[in-house]
Amino acid sequence: MPADALVNGSFSRSIDSRDRGLAYGDGLFETIKINAGHPEFLSLHLRRLQWGCARLGIDCDVSVIESDIEKILPVASTQAAVLKIIITRESGGRGYQPDANAGFNRILRVEGLTSDYAVEASQGVAVRLCDTRLGINPQLAGIKHLSRLENVLARAEWRDKAITEGLMFDSDGRLVEGTMSNVFIVKDKVLLTPRLHRCGVNGVIRQLLIEQLAPSLKLSCDTADVVLEDIYQAEEVFICNSLMGIVPVVTIGCHTKTIGDITRSLQQSLQAVRNSHA
Amino acid sequence: MPADALVNGSFSRSIDSRDRGLAYGDGLFETIKINAGHPEFLSLHLRRLQWGCARLGIDCDVSVIESDIEKILPVASTQAAVLKIIITRESGGRGYQPDANAGFNRILRVEGLTSDYAVEASQGVAVRLCDTRLGINPQLAGIKHLSRLENVLARAEWRDKAITEGLMFDSDGRLVEGTMSNVFIVKDKVLLTPRLHRCGVNGVIRQLLIEQLAPSLKLSCDTADVVLEDIYQAEEVFICNSLMGIVPVVTIGCHTKTIGDITRSLQQSLQAVRNSHA
Repeated sequence: MPADALVNGSFSRSIDSRDRGLAYGDGLFETIKINAGHPEFLSLHLRRLQWGCARLGIDCDVSVIESDIEKILPVASTQAAVLKIIITRESGGRGYQPDANAGFNRILRVEGLTSDYAVEASQGVAVRLCDTRLGINPQLAGIKHLSRLENVLARAEWRDKAITEGLMFDSDGRLVEGTMSNVFIVKDKVLLTPRLHRCGVNGVIRQLLIEQLAPSLKLSCDTADVVLEDIYQAEEVFICNSLMGIVPVVTIGCHTKTIGDITRSLQQSLQAVRNSHA
Repeated sequence: MPADALVNGSFSRSIDSRDRGLAYGDGLFETIKINAGHPEFLSLHLRRLQWGCARLGIDCDVSVIESDIEKILPVASTQAAVLKIIITRESGGRGYQPDANAGFNRILRVEGLTSDYAVEASQGVAVRLCDTRLGINPQLAGIKHLSRLENVLARAEWRDKAITEGLMFDSDGRLVEGTMSNVFIVKDKVLLTPRLHRCGVNGVIRQLLIEQLAPSLKLSCDTADVVLEDIYQAEEVFICNSLMGIVPVVTIGCHTKTIGDITRSLQQSLQAVRNSHA
């Protein structure tokens, strides 16, 4: 079944080739899991979208996106699906300079979910270390923007299906994230995740872990500078995103980890929150 | 008059909203000046495009782009115009991973040239120093790729029309380029331009200056690490790109420069090359 898409409120699969999202990566996106017709953690996704638009100076009205979501949701599968929302800065002539009165374009698309990561969440996954580094730019840090060529090159480093994710470091050698996920480690019973003030995407499940899941379990959770040695010394390592949830890491290159109690508790805690919203 | 565009060989102004150029900035572009129906320095532009595609692992056939150019050129104004070519990696499902068998999409567009920079080239321009920094990523350095949000944010820093360009530094404080141009300085009679092995775009006029114009004038031309102090101490400063040619810089913030002989000689040399191709 082909994907269904909405462009600026109308059902369409095409966009104007002058879109600044295409020309300059001048926009941002969200990837939202739809579970039985219900978009999971929608308010967190829309909060991040609004925050990212404000950071990039894109004049975005979230209520318009909410209307779009209502319009496109009925075409989603009754099973698990994915809603992708792309927001781009409206074009106003040639060149990098944004038009002072530019509005925003919105592109929504619903697709089937090819994997619900149930096996991965249960058994854990293997990850590798990527050679591709993330450039440091505090102005873009945290935002799920469209200029993602670094992630593409990192993900192009391997084709071995046994490896689920690659860990990415910044140009100074600090751990930042996976190509498509955030990373947490447990070290001395404390939950740690890389600070994202230099680069990286502040994922919705990462936010939920810090703000809600860890506190509910009375777990200390800190953001910190994390280097490779910390990962190797960690008792537990997991990755997370909106589609996979929380997934334990059992292999990092040639190092192995066991799946620990804290990861399992956080998985249960996430599932409980999901059920309470369903 | 609206712009005319060719998408994968057919006249169209729309592209598939699933394009990876939109989704991830996964592609590259060229901006080519058309002078009386003739695309200037086309072989240099196509050489850079091919080199960039190879660097990004995009399987691109330049002869197809050459056919596209032949097809779209007749719609260009008989006066000065701009040809923009965008190449994106063909999509193959969801996620960052490129499809192993992905081809490429090509989007060509012809637009009128709003300024030929004749006054600027003659009288010189004012530039400012941008706060927005360029992240360091050697894998992307030199390539005119589509993940250009840093340039957008830098160009959004000012609206004063008296300022033509903003100089950008990398996250370690070295001069890299202007938001839309390359930068050269003359220091102790030697022509210098920032090395672009960490970030930045290796412009076609920059390449022409290094490979042809400077040697033809028996000028030493080096690539070097350049910092702010070098710019202030320089005898001459100029910026260049395919549309503006070589444009002297007479004001940098509150510093002023005079337009020097070397800049004038290089401008004449560029004009001679242009005339010989016309």
